[in-house]
Amino acid sequence: MTDTLLILPGDGIGPEVMAEVSRIIDWFGDKRGLKFDVSEDLVGGAAYDVHGVPLADATMAKAQEVDAVLLGAVGGPKYDNLDFSVKPERGLLRLRKEMDLFANLRPAQCFDALADFSSLKRDVVAGLDIMIVRELTSGIYFGEPRGIIEENGERVGINTQRYTESEIDRVARSAFELARKRGNKVCSMEKANVMESGILWREVVQRVHDADYPDVELSHMYADAGGMQLCRWPKQFDVIVTDNLFGDLLSDVAAMLTGSLGMLPSASLGAPMANGRPKALYEPVHGSAPDIAGQGKANPIACILSFAMALRYSFDQGDEATRLEKAVEKVLADGVRTADLMQAEGGTPVTTAGMGDAILAALEAS
Amino acid sequence: MTDTLLILPGDGIGPEVMAEVSRIIDWFGDKRGLKFDVSEDLVGGAAYDVHGVPLADATMAKAQEVDAVLLGAVGGPKYDNLDFSVKPERGLLRLRKEMDLFANLRPAQCFDALADFSSLKRDVVAGLDIMIVRELTSGIYFGEPRGIIEENGERVGINTQRYTESEIDRVARSAFELARKRGNKVCSMEKANVMESGILWREVVQRVHDADYPDVELSHMYADAGGMQLCRWPKQFDVIVTDNLFGDLLSDVAAMLTGSLGMLPSASLGAPMANGRPKALYEPVHGSAPDIAGQGKANPIACILSFAMALRYSFDQGDEATRLEKAVEKVLADGVRTADLMQAEGGTPVTTAGMGDAILAALEAS
Ligand SMILES: CC(C)[C@H](C(=O)O)[C@@H](O)C(=O)O
Ligand SMILES: CC(C)[C@H](C(=O)O)[C@@H](O)C(=O)O
Repeated sequence: MTDTLLILPGDGIGPEVMAEVSRIIDWFGDKRGLKFDVSEDLVGGAAYDVHGVPLADATMAKAQEVDAVLLGAVGGPKYDNLDFSVKPERGLLRLRKEMDLFANLRPAQCFDALADFSSLKRDVVAGLDIMIVRELTSGIYFGEPRGIIEENGERVGINTQRYTESEIDRVARSAFELARKRGNKVCSMEKANVMESGILWREVVQRVHDADYPDVELSHMYADAGGMQLCRWPKQFDVIVTDNLFGDLLSDVAAMLTGSLGMLPSASLGAPMANGRPKALYEPVHGSAPDIAGQGKANPIACILSFAMALRYSFDQGDEATRLEKAVEKVLADGVRTADLMQAEGGTPVTTAGMGDAILAALEAS
Repeated sequence: MTDTLLILPGDGIGPEVMAEVSRIIDWFGDKRGLKFDVSEDLVGGAAYDVHGVPLADATMAKAQEVDAVLLGAVGGPKYDNLDFSVKPERGLLRLRKEMDLFANLRPAQCFDALADFSSLKRDVVAGLDIMIVRELTSGIYFGEPRGIIEENGERVGINTQRYTESEIDRVARSAFELARKRGNKVCSMEKANVMESGILWREVVQRVHDADYPDVELSHMYADAGGMQLCRWPKQFDVIVTDNLFGDLLSDVAAMLTGSLGMLPSASLGAPMANGRPKALYEPVHGSAPDIAGQGKANPIACILSFAMALRYSFDQGDEATRLEKAVEKVLADGVRTADLMQAEGGTPVTTAGMGDAILAALEAS
């Protein structure tokens, strides 16, 4: 049975960076015997333009059936004034929710060749390698009631943060499992000093730890202090586990520390399917960057590394994932640079496709 | 009529740093003719130990009557296992809520003498001067329903984000007013792409701007992107206005950028009282630092600069506030350093009281 992939390029630079991923996928098929049955469909504004919704039901159904979904990016100024219910982001959020992708893995890694890009001092970020595990299907992103209501003659905006014990339990397990394969340390972040949902979060994480992962070092931190500590000395962390909203902010801060936003992939994993593989969606951390879309300026590496995560987490091809990651490192060490990576000291400027060429060449040589 | 101050030293290093503030207050009384009628009371764990609650009703009543409250810090491991309703933090939150201190001003300023302390590169932070205006009396900190309930055989942690138009309106006005006295730029941060309360937030801020502050430059940013941009190039910002929870995180990140957490004051302002002055509470951004409490190691500057903010915002003594701020700058430029500020290149190490001495000496010389 062939492995199946659904590609959703989305909006802005999504299609451009995904085009490079497609070439990489083909290479693994031709040269490494990893054949994928690839289909492509629309998400975000691109889907809205055709279907009037940011994710068609048929696309949702396909996503449920494939081994892995690869997504580019969604959103753009063209869609800013759409009704909330059909905004591009709702397509992405529907995928996350209906596929029940509760564990969002966001590695924040600093590439040696790029350490000087960071706004932080080199010694603070060089060699940085942390993994943020963000809960992705619950919390204030999805809690009811929500909306804008009328009360006492004025409007009131309402959202609800809700976490059940089982929701916290399962994402905590993901974090502990990952930690065991890394530095064996988990730091859990919430605002238990202010929010009852944070109290429950802390308690359940601690209970899962004590029952099943006593060998992993666990600490707890308030999310505001966590944000501070990420800026002060991020290397103190190995795995961070946190809720949907805090994870959104903290993972972006962590991403920016590395100085390489165009480089960071993510994996969103759910429960195992019948074939034992987790439901999975892979996407770059960066957005749709409408300002540079269509100009061949976008850096495809984050999207390419998202495919590497797919090789590792969906297809059990850890060695091939490493091959791809090493090819990217090699290209960076050689000074190949898309526009976002150009700095005073130079390097070889390339387009989006040029970066794809360089990575393919490095794969060939591997 | 004498100006009144209520001092609430609180827990941990609170009493030590507040002792230095008291000396500064006395100096302004003796030497500058600014006489204050000062009373002192308990808050946080210190209040719990005596009254069984983190803020006694009598203290609350006093806080409502004075011109300004100065608070040290609350919390400590001794109180970690108390019930949520009597945790030290609840004392602080009660003050904020019942005094209706809706505008929390958190300047993030980088002191020239300390720019190398930052984990960020010098050019990224040197000269940094931004003001975060955080909504402080609403949002998920106070919204109902909240709590931990039982549902389908498991517990569920619930908190509610709620913002009314008038709550957003008034804090937006504070931000625009401040901007006019500074760089004339406001950036408003929310997650309007995910939260309806964020949509209302954005809309009301824009409306207040268009109606009454068209001369101020206004931009909107998603809070996650805001966190990133704070780390990447914080000098792009002048005034940032955001909600209670995002403000908690973002102001801590901004504080850490400056490298001088022990230096940062805050003001929490409400509506004008009968005498025309706003209800006001001043406190350092740092916490109670239980690990160094009682050792004379704490840096009193954040608390002292909070008093400077009181001089400016409660007592209309902008020149005297500047006098105090300049004295602090002088002492730092002279290399006077509490433990948190000691670095490889040296400086003159002083205790908490030693720092107070140095600042008093600089005031004398001013
Ligand atoms: C696009 C947006 C809905 C999304 C989020 O808030 O989760 C993005 O910021 C992310 O982090 O993946
Ligand atoms: C102590 C705590 C309740 C408080 C908050 O979360 O607001 C603190 O972090 C702050 O920022 O003033």
